[in-house]
Amino acid sequence: MRAFTITADKFTAENIPHCGNKFLIGNGYFGIRGTMEEYTKEHMPAVNMAGIYDKVGDAWRESVNAPNPLSTYVKINGKKLALPDAEPISHKQELDIAKGIHTRCTTWQTEGGEVCVTCERFADMARRNAVGMRYTLKTDFDCTAEITTGIDGDVWDINGPHFVKIDTASRGDIEAVSGTTGEKGIIVTAQECVSYRFDGEINVRCGEKQVLKTITFTAKANTEYCFEKTALIYASCDEKPCTDAADELNYADLKREHIAAWERIWDVSEVEIDGDDEAMLALNYSIYHLNCIAPRGLSGISIPARGLSGQVYKGAVFWDTEMFMIDYYIHTEPAVAKTLLQYRIDTLCGAKTKAAEYGLDGAYYAWESQEGGFEACSDYNVVDVFTKRPMRTYFRDKQYHVSAAVVYGIMKYINATGDTGILSEGALEVIIECARMYRSLLIKKADGSQYEIRDVVGPDEYHERVSNNAYTNKMAQFVFKTAYDMIKALDNDSYDELNKRYDLEKLLDVFKDSYENMYIPQPSEDTGLIEQFDGYFKLEDVSVDEVRSRLLDPKEYWGGAYGVAADTQVLKQADVVAMLSMFKNDYNAEIMRKNWEYYEPRTEHGSSLSACMYSLLSCHIGNPDAAYPLFMKSASADMNPGGKEWAGGIYIGGTHPASEGGAWIVAVKGFAGIDIADGELVCNPNLPKKWKKLSFKLMFKGELYCISIENGKGTINKI
Amino acid sequence: MRAFTITADKFTAENIPHCGNKFLIGNGYFGIRGTMEEYTKEHMPAVNMAGIYDKVGDAWRESVNAPNPLSTYVKINGKKLALPDAEPISHKQELDIAKGIHTRCTTWQTEGGEVCVTCERFADMARRNAVGMRYTLKTDFDCTAEITTGIDGDVWDINGPHFVKIDTASRGDIEAVSGTTGEKGIIVTAQECVSYRFDGEINVRCGEKQVLKTITFTAKANTEYCFEKTALIYASCDEKPCTDAADELNYADLKREHIAAWERIWDVSEVEIDGDDEAMLALNYSIYHLNCIAPRGLSGISIPARGLSGQVYKGAVFWDTEMFMIDYYIHTEPAVAKTLLQYRIDTLCGAKTKAAEYGLDGAYYAWESQEGGFEACSDYNVVDVFTKRPMRTYFRDKQYHVSAAVVYGIMKYINATGDTGILSEGALEVIIECARMYRSLLIKKADGSQYEIRDVVGPDEYHERVSNNAYTNKMAQFVFKTAYDMIKALDNDSYDELNKRYDLEKLLDVFKDSYENMYIPQPSEDTGLIEQFDGYFKLEDVSVDEVRSRLLDPKEYWGGAYGVAADTQVLKQADVVAMLSMFKNDYNAEIMRKNWEYYEPRTEHGSSLSACMYSLLSCHIGNPDAAYPLFMKSASADMNPGGKEWAGGIYIGGTHPASEGGAWIVAVKGFAGIDIADGELVCNPNLPKKWKKLSFKLMFKGELYCISIENGKGTINKI
Repeated sequence: MRAFTITADKFTAENIPHCGNKFLIGNGYFGIRGTMEEYTKEHMPAVNMAGIYDKVGDAWRESVNAPNPLSTYVKINGKKLALPDAEPISHKQELDIAKGIHTRCTTWQTEGGEVCVTCERFADMARRNAVGMRYTLKTDFDCTAEITTGIDGDVWDINGPHFVKIDTASRGDIEAVSGTTGEKGIIVTAQECVSYRFDGEINVRCGEKQVLKTITFTAKANTEYCFEKTALIYASCDEKPCTDAADELNYADLKREHIAAWERIWDVSEVEIDGDDEAMLALNYSIYHLNCIAPRGLSGISIPARGLSGQVYKGAVFWDTEMFMIDYYIHTEPAVAKTLLQYRIDTLCGAKTKAAEYGLDGAYYAWESQEGGFEACSDYNVVDVFTKRPMRTYFRDKQYHVSAAVVYGIMKYINATGDTGILSEGALEVIIECARMYRSLLIKKADGSQYEIRDVVGPDEYHERVSNNAYTNKMAQFVFKTAYDMIKALDNDSYDELNKRYDLEKLLDVFKDSYENMYIPQPSEDTGLIEQFDGYFKLEDVSVDEVRSRLLDPKEYWGGAYGVAADTQVLKQADVVAMLSMFKNDYNAEIMRKNWEYYEPRTEHGSSLSACMYSLLSCHIGNPDAAYPLFMKSASADMNPGGKEWAGGIYIGGTHPASEGGAWIVAVKGFAGIDIADGELVCNPNLPKKWKKLSFKLMFKGELYCISIENGKGTINKI
Repeated sequence: MRAFTITADKFTAENIPHCGNKFLIGNGYFGIRGTMEEYTKEHMPAVNMAGIYDKVGDAWRESVNAPNPLSTYVKINGKKLALPDAEPISHKQELDIAKGIHTRCTTWQTEGGEVCVTCERFADMARRNAVGMRYTLKTDFDCTAEITTGIDGDVWDINGPHFVKIDTASRGDIEAVSGTTGEKGIIVTAQECVSYRFDGEINVRCGEKQVLKTITFTAKANTEYCFEKTALIYASCDEKPCTDAADELNYADLKREHIAAWERIWDVSEVEIDGDDEAMLALNYSIYHLNCIAPRGLSGISIPARGLSGQVYKGAVFWDTEMFMIDYYIHTEPAVAKTLLQYRIDTLCGAKTKAAEYGLDGAYYAWESQEGGFEACSDYNVVDVFTKRPMRTYFRDKQYHVSAAVVYGIMKYINATGDTGILSEGALEVIIECARMYRSLLIKKADGSQYEIRDVVGPDEYHERVSNNAYTNKMAQFVFKTAYDMIKALDNDSYDELNKRYDLEKLLDVFKDSYENMYIPQPSEDTGLIEQFDGYFKLEDVSVDEVRSRLLDPKEYWGGAYGVAADTQVLKQADVVAMLSMFKNDYNAEIMRKNWEYYEPRTEHGSSLSACMYSLLSCHIGNPDAAYPLFMKSASADMNPGGKEWAGGIYIGGTHPASEGGAWIVAVKGFAGIDIADGELVCNPNLPKKWKKLSFKLMFKGELYCISIENGKGTINKI
């Protein structure tokens, strides 16, 4: 693996939230935001736990942040070096994505002279419960120094506090803080052991919410004073209990094993791009993020839309996973992809419950899925900036396309891994139940001949309650056809077995009727355009900038009933274009081009899921240079500040793994043109001009391949 | 006719708009608001024309106000006696509803002493173009007086100015002002002749927009100086041109003929209530208003929702006419009722155009119908008080029940008059085309057995885009059944004739299938309640007062997507209860009672159409005393100030003829219990406690009947 480093050279208070995301470390069990050790709640530090949720009162249910074992600050001659009182004079923050190690180096000016703190830390990729941290203090003058480090149970929450009880303890060399959640009584514990090799007076305090250890000593000028911390984070609901103890771990050993684990990942995952270091860095940085959040060796969880960067979007799992992230795992570490799908299989019951709630048959997956498939999405998902009232949104009720995304994810997995066994392990039931849900959505006019689906929210959430959304109808048809084909493909024994629970003959008839008679908006004969939904072309045709200029408040929501985009053709994100990029074999290049050209200037790209879809379609129609800036936007979603952080009064910042997964899809399926044809990997590359060579590895049906594209030609070699 | 007088004894500036409505005079060709002669535009004086519309720029199309021939003011010793400089010290405004004469008597205090003006005026019920006015000045001191009277073409408009050209003229004894509308070039003229019998210097000025005649004279103390004005109002689009000239008319003759015409009306229309003078006054006042706006001898027009009181609701015709007003005319002056229906027959083309606009078959009548059936309702019918932006409303698109109201009006007319001839004159085509429209709304679930109608706005406009609104579905079924029955009832010749244009056999099949398989929400077995629409009972169940308390702005709209009522069970107006009161024979008294009791406390009665429906149902279930306050509310809609004058930033004040027609329906069909059974008039009275006797006349199948109810018994005698 070559060296890839992400750096911030300057301290800017307003970039603290952004850096918290940009410099995230994580190991799939938890994510640790890229905040400084001395930060307190207002700067949003977090050790965000995967798959643990809690609800306080009427507030949104959200993921839980663990007690923070990194909490550390320094006092020099009695004066604390932390915001808001002390701003650094120099500050460097660095992420070594090859090794998964975060480093900071910060200098403060004090009355006596300069004080410098460096700290490296990692979320252990080899032992999921472990965190390592090495903290060094150096001054350029003699002084009295105090380093206070410990575990802070007074964590940052959006809709907290989630710990109704906090226990603090110090025994021997170990300190621990355990928080108990209110809803389910889950105990989340952070445990630490601190070691150092200099003289100092030590003092340990167990407070109500913190355990803090203060080392007081006389610091000599230009001498490094260093401590190492090994910490463990675990929860009472863990499937596999943590068997380590913090004082038995050694920092150097942990670090070595951690780096080795990342090396194994990069050995398969690294993408090389000759001629475009910027793109190569952005894409590998995207891959880094996808690995920080991959649930390895865990079950019952999937990946939240904001990864493990905090509680935004409630720490919930969206269609993002199956649509944009899973492809990377399918082709690099299929076991992770299977874990993601297993989550959907395991939460079928939640999806059935939701369907029943809306009077539908089958399975309607949650728009914002928490543990057990619990639907976390509220009927009021946006706040009106003018009245401060919650606004009734229809994400929960009418984004039916989430069920299709689950089926789509399953089929991508099966087609690329050949693992049809998953069907009998529950995936076929998921497919059938999703198809049953779509069936119950179908309506026909009294004198009509085709099935319609009315009153939906498509991917473009700015237009709510629309009918015959091309994307939704096409995906429903895909689900019907998939269910039909998968039942038809069953061997006799499996058929008979499944037939005990379903009347399969009847289902086959029903699904066939459904996909054959589904109304799919077709390209207009005149213009080649596919209407996004009934009546879309009658909406005001106005530019994105014009719509933006109508905002009365920058945080105002663009969609909903009266948002600035609602009655215009301006859309939030790829919708028809998403459909075309997913079903490229059903449309000719001319149709795809015309629709791309129509919809792109009308797209706000207000979702990080948008750019990659446009980029991918651009590749499909042979225009990689138009695809390139959208690819870069997608790959860099978390690298640069200025992203969309508000939607109608709700903070929506965090990492963007779907965008990063989407960038990987564009590189592999777009630029490299990797596809599966007749069950074989094929490569029809279309590289951007400045890319001399693109090479990467890919898992396909259990084998690892090396793909290399150069001089317009692609080679696929089994390793 | 006994003497009925409506009076206001005090001047209050804030009541000026209310008095403009309360003291309206009119003759069906125009209405004259009850404003004072010296008022200018800000006080909303208007001579509001029936059936003449104009549109300025992007503003709403609305009815046109004629040049005002009543404009008159007085100067005493050079000082003008008019607002805002001179407020009266005493003021009395009176409406003699028996004679249709408006009188005002106002005294001002000036430096020299008191000045008193009296003025009587009428909108001529015998000659539709004529206006009579007698104006008297008296002072209690000698002074120099100037009376300026004339025609003011600078009229008050909501979305004007509508006159792009104004001509003023003075020839001989006649002055005239003609305004030409911008859209259609219609010329609306007011012509006047002024006569007086005292010495004075006269001066006539033809200005750009006014013709003003000033009489300057020395007024002696305690001497009356009087002038009389005969005026004519006419328009270039009149079917029958005005053949009179203002100088050939004599005030006394006009007045005598006018009173005689009102006497003929009251001879049929007066309702007597022994034991309740207040109710008798309110009801006859309601009847007065219905007569001020009745289109007699006119064609191509109907009655706007705000009568002829101005441009509110664009001067457009709503379902109000067929649902609430037509009953009175059917039973007192069927020719007027037929004119109203003829308007719908004549505007079938407009209704077909609207249906086609929405991709529907048949006829979809305008929610706000102007000439030719032109749909005046905008997609944005309310203004957001917080952002000042227009709000997307669905009145225009989805209040499908207006077409059913037209059919319902036709059937009420036919059943009460026996005039089946109207069917072959176009009414049957209206019924068939409305049924075809509803047919094209019907949908069925892929595996469903009944037809549904989704995504509608029912009478309760606070809940938009609902599905299976009980009222709408029931009315659609009524239309299907009516169309089926009316085709079945055709004689052979008529059938063959109509069969040339329609495939009647097929229509019969389709309409039968439609009404037989229509889904109508049924009373719950547990509670007896009928759900207003799918999911209504799941909405927040909260009181009207609680919802009101959530308003952040008193002018805020309650409905729409985010209004305070939208996600609650609080409704604007009778919806399920309207259905029950109209289809009382389809439900037992217990069901009707349970639903009344459930829905009434949840009803804001934010529409003047609401109270009468609740009142009527209360009579049907044998509870006239619960009906009584709602009846009084309905009958007094224009008598008392404090009515709802704003909806989301839009002024909605004016007269309430539907409420007044509703009061008449309650008195006759509710309290008197008049019904048609087996083609005969029957009477099942249910009088409020304090009513000793109720008597009135009624036209039925061409004969006049006298109905008298006393001691719990009703008698019906042919006259």
